[in-house]
Amino acid sequence: MKYCSNCATEIEIKIPQGDNLPRHTCPDCDSIFYVNPKVVAGCLPVFEDKVLLCKRAIEPRLGYWTLPAGFMELGESTEEAALRETMEEANAKVDLISLYTLTSITHVSQVQFIYLANLPEPKFSTSNESLEVRLFSESEIPWDELAFPTVKNALYHYFEDRKKGVYPLREIILTGNQ
Amino acid sequence: MKYCSNCATEIEIKIPQGDNLPRHTCPDCDSIFYVNPKVVAGCLPVFEDKVLLCKRAIEPRLGYWTLPAGFMELGESTEEAALRETMEEANAKVDLISLYTLTSITHVSQVQFIYLANLPEPKFSTSNESLEVRLFSESEIPWDELAFPTVKNALYHYFEDRKKGVYPLREIILTGNQ
Repeated sequence: MKYCSNCATEIEIKIPQGDNLPRHTCPDCDSIFYVNPKVVAGCLPVFEDKVLLCKRAIEPRLGYWTLPAGFMELGESTEEAALRETMEEANAKVDLISLYTLTSITHVSQVQFIYLANLPEPKFSTSNESLEVRLFSESEIPWDELAFPTVKNALYHYFEDRKKGVYPLREIILTGNQ
Repeated sequence: MKYCSNCATEIEIKIPQGDNLPRHTCPDCDSIFYVNPKVVAGCLPVFEDKVLLCKRAIEPRLGYWTLPAGFMELGESTEEAALRETMEEANAKVDLISLYTLTSITHVSQVQFIYLANLPEPKFSTSNESLEVRLFSESEIPWDELAFPTVKNALYHYFEDRKKGVYPLREIILTGNQ
């Protein structure tokens, strides 16, 4: 950020009065521009004994497998964001079961919500964001080709929890040092 | 947002290629400026049979009672944000017990995390953000002077759950029509 988006004056980085962190501020119109973590929401869709994964068609991690998930938009709930992203990335209509993994990813300033979801029918297809969409049984999971640690965590917990038939919420913090 | 913060050109609102929502975009340098929901994190601090509330020293809802909570900053976890806000607003050091209410507030595009927390000692004080900080028993809660619906929800559930001694996570969606 170099210029004030309100009046086009050059930005200064300083600690505003009453604050304790440096912010992008405008010396002319006094606007303060806060930058905050973003929320990512998505699903772990399950059909019978299989889970749905998408092969990413876009960077980062193009060509790697991921759960359908993406940035939450203004005006929606985390549940709505998860459903929308699953439709956008996999053309799949799912029913949310429960919030399953909730991860603060501090080194990229994201909070990620993954919902366990039921895919009622094996209906899905590729999209602008997914080169390939398919169902995987546990033995077929491409563990070395997963896009993100959050995907690996969700799948690991899912297959462990499935043995017991209970799926408690997992709260996780990733700092980039793992 | 009127000007590109990267090159100071006047912003256009249009749907970028491959997207499906209008965004603030720069016709000169092609920057796209996404605006996403913000995360608020805070605590419901409990000392013996009382809960800690703060009387707001700042707008919105100046003079109304709230739980210590505020916007999550870059680089922290939701837990760290909740602890930091409790220290900043009430000078209180708490121990988090569990995530208690998780609320999507769609009309203001916020996701709010409130953790149930133990205040080990009745040590707290006012701050730049709080005119008054005090402990309230259930019968003393100023229900008509609470700052936000999320505060009311957390307190309502807390006093109900306390009768049973279990504090399950509550997932709530507020749309502004309540």
